[in-house]
Amino acid sequence: MIAEFQRLIGAEFVLTDDEARFRYSKDHTEDYSFLPDVVLKPANTEQVSQILRFCNAHHIPVTPRGGGTSLSGGALPVRKGVVLSMERFNRILDIDTLNLQATVETGVITEVFQEAVKEKGLFYPPDPASKGSCFIGGNVAHNSGGPKAVKYGVTRDYILNMEVVLPTGEIIWTGANVLKNSTGYNLTQLIAGSEGTLGVITKIVFKLRPLPTRSMVLLASFKSNEEAMRAISAIYLAGITPSGMEFMEREAIERTTDYLQRHLHQKVSVPLKEETAAQLIIELDGNDDEIILKDAERIVSVLDTFGIEDVFYANSQTEKDELWKVRRHISPAVNAYSLTKAEDVVVPRGNLPALITAIKNIGQAYGFRSVCYGHAGDGNLHVNVMKENIPDALWNSKINEGIGEIFKEVVRLGGMLSGEHGIGIAKKPYMPLAVGQTNLNLMRAIKAAFDPNGILNPDKIF
Amino acid sequence: MIAEFQRLIGAEFVLTDDEARFRYSKDHTEDYSFLPDVVLKPANTEQVSQILRFCNAHHIPVTPRGGGTSLSGGALPVRKGVVLSMERFNRILDIDTLNLQATVETGVITEVFQEAVKEKGLFYPPDPASKGSCFIGGNVAHNSGGPKAVKYGVTRDYILNMEVVLPTGEIIWTGANVLKNSTGYNLTQLIAGSEGTLGVITKIVFKLRPLPTRSMVLLASFKSNEEAMRAISAIYLAGITPSGMEFMEREAIERTTDYLQRHLHQKVSVPLKEETAAQLIIELDGNDDEIILKDAERIVSVLDTFGIEDVFYANSQTEKDELWKVRRHISPAVNAYSLTKAEDVVVPRGNLPALITAIKNIGQAYGFRSVCYGHAGDGNLHVNVMKENIPDALWNSKINEGIGEIFKEVVRLGGMLSGEHGIGIAKKPYMPLAVGQTNLNLMRAIKAAFDPNGILNPDKIF
Repeated sequence: MIAEFQRLIGAEFVLTDDEARFRYSKDHTEDYSFLPDVVLKPANTEQVSQILRFCNAHHIPVTPRGGGTSLSGGALPVRKGVVLSMERFNRILDIDTLNLQATVETGVITEVFQEAVKEKGLFYPPDPASKGSCFIGGNVAHNSGGPKAVKYGVTRDYILNMEVVLPTGEIIWTGANVLKNSTGYNLTQLIAGSEGTLGVITKIVFKLRPLPTRSMVLLASFKSNEEAMRAISAIYLAGITPSGMEFMEREAIERTTDYLQRHLHQKVSVPLKEETAAQLIIELDGNDDEIILKDAERIVSVLDTFGIEDVFYANSQTEKDELWKVRRHISPAVNAYSLTKAEDVVVPRGNLPALITAIKNIGQAYGFRSVCYGHAGDGNLHVNVMKENIPDALWNSKINEGIGEIFKEVVRLGGMLSGEHGIGIAKKPYMPLAVGQTNLNLMRAIKAAFDPNGILNPDKIF
Repeated sequence: MIAEFQRLIGAEFVLTDDEARFRYSKDHTEDYSFLPDVVLKPANTEQVSQILRFCNAHHIPVTPRGGGTSLSGGALPVRKGVVLSMERFNRILDIDTLNLQATVETGVITEVFQEAVKEKGLFYPPDPASKGSCFIGGNVAHNSGGPKAVKYGVTRDYILNMEVVLPTGEIIWTGANVLKNSTGYNLTQLIAGSEGTLGVITKIVFKLRPLPTRSMVLLASFKSNEEAMRAISAIYLAGITPSGMEFMEREAIERTTDYLQRHLHQKVSVPLKEETAAQLIIELDGNDDEIILKDAERIVSVLDTFGIEDVFYANSQTEKDELWKVRRHISPAVNAYSLTKAEDVVVPRGNLPALITAIKNIGQAYGFRSVCYGHAGDGNLHVNVMKENIPDALWNSKINEGIGEIFKEVVRLGGMLSGEHGIGIAKKPYMPLAVGQTNLNLMRAIKAAFDPNGILNPDKIF
């Protein structure tokens, strides 16, 4: 079989050595590692098709891999077999300024794509924290979000059309390069967010927006997590739509400024008073400084009713960059301090105060600490449950039970297990808490319709 | 079986008389009529479930029906059996101002819903021309759009969650009431737009927006269709995002002002010079008159490069209402003049000039006239092919071939058969022109997974 793969894509792109297999055995999910039998690096859609046709005929598991930044185990080859690394699909094929669209290969790094369209005065808003290393195809497969989703929507909102190789090797385009489409079932939106279980995404057509030219960033400090969460809803009730609304617990901020200094030798200063329990980063964007300033003033007058001490205006680009740098590095910073289980729950925005109270109470009851942060403007909260000194036996039993309690509370509050990281293997045991048996059966039937032999990213989601 | 239906939902909601069967044999699609055996009007989800369970056991075709305004035959019971009229599902269950969400039953009239949220200072943008009589559930089933889609998106963009009764009678919620969700396959977006073939939608949770408080409407006149189409792209290239961008051919305007006067006794005056071939209605909205005016001035300076005579500013509410009244009544007006086949094609916006040229050329070659209008800002053009004096035999043969040529051109230009009306039975013969065999097979397999006995809205789409 290795010989066949070598024939199909060239020997140098078929890796079987221990070092490569180990490197591709992990993604960013906890400390999981699953060794594949072989790593394949196809160059084009036709090669992907040939590989899948062969693997389908021989029932060989295939795990597609983007940048390997999954936090739910999306890129882990849990049944061994093939890791299909899409790293050679790294070309931006077209930026169509007439129609505000772009066509890219799946392995383009998200930030590279963002910068390329920015040069043409255009804007691709989805903005995961890992944008410097994640692949755009992985964003599509997991329906990634990021801080700008609160105003501009998530990855799926920008997908017009995709080239996908089905597990049988057949190649399809899922839709058309149009802004509206009511022509049959929406295969595009079904495959987007399916975590590489229904097909291998090879090319994507995105819609783009005009680039907003101005922005302002505020940092507001609160004496409790709950007050910060209540302030978020109040801002939306005032009719303002910020382009970013990020929540950070105090510990998240402290660990990150410390991490940036120690590990990256970057000193950033976030104004943080002793009595501050949590902060909100609030971004406004647009094309007119005056309007942005008006909205900022309205936000401040809403915040005033929450008895906050002061609001810091990040006016210079450096100040803005520093605040976003802190926000973006919370995940690596917290993980550098302790192994964590990274949850990604989402509830209706108005239920965030109840959620954060519940999370802390459950932590006390089950004996774990957590660091919370995230895209609270759209109800999406990242909860890093920290291992610290918890013994392995407890970490894999009682702590999981406690996380189960968090998910139950999330569902009780009208929420879901994942807002943007996906289910993979990490959240799979909890799916029945949130998704009914009938829904799971429908998903399994859809999976069977696309992938009768179950070769593609097996054992994920359900 | 009738007795069983009477037992399930009460005799008065089981209609078998000829008058009722005829009334429910039609929707707004051409002059099609298919008599059902029985019309059922269930009161609640449990009754829908019992009806479907029974029909599934006895392989009885069930055609769900909303307001009956489909233009593609979505509500036509082509295999007889049951018409399932959702008219008693007419309650707005909740408008949640804290989370900017609303929960409605499927049979609420779209405009009633819009007005109810407007009273709370909120905004539900999807806005089909039939909003005064169509049901919101039908909008979801067909992924309706309307003039505001160009800025605010189509129906599917506002759906957070749905209660759906599957053909087997099982009741599910498709997702959760959250703004982001990466928890398994997106059943919500699969069922939305599936034209009532995968399940009966009973309740919908929509997200809402703050209501824009100000607007301005411009009317720009052009000497050719192509010039008008080119101007649209030019406005977007200037970075402006209007909340409405509607194209109207001269004949559409003339027929409609005439229709309004004759049939509805309403005199509206649209400024229309002799040399005008087409007009654009351009709407800008927001919360600040100054910004809207600035954008309007930028639009006028873009339009100036197209050598237009003048731009009419509709400043008063009456003037705005009159322009929109004309736009909304084009479809009934043209249909009052002649039987038509109503097409609803969509292409990348930049390809509209080529499309309209092709449509007129094909009309000349195949011997039909067409009236074109629609949501050109998002590339969506309505093409009413007029029967006039064309003999029935030609109308059902050569004219269909000509329409096939239009669809081929649409696909060549990167477009799709339907932007917002759906496929139903009217566009079904043309599906293979736009959607590949593999895609159709996937859709059929999905259908079989949801509806193994094929009872729900049979013979639609594919």
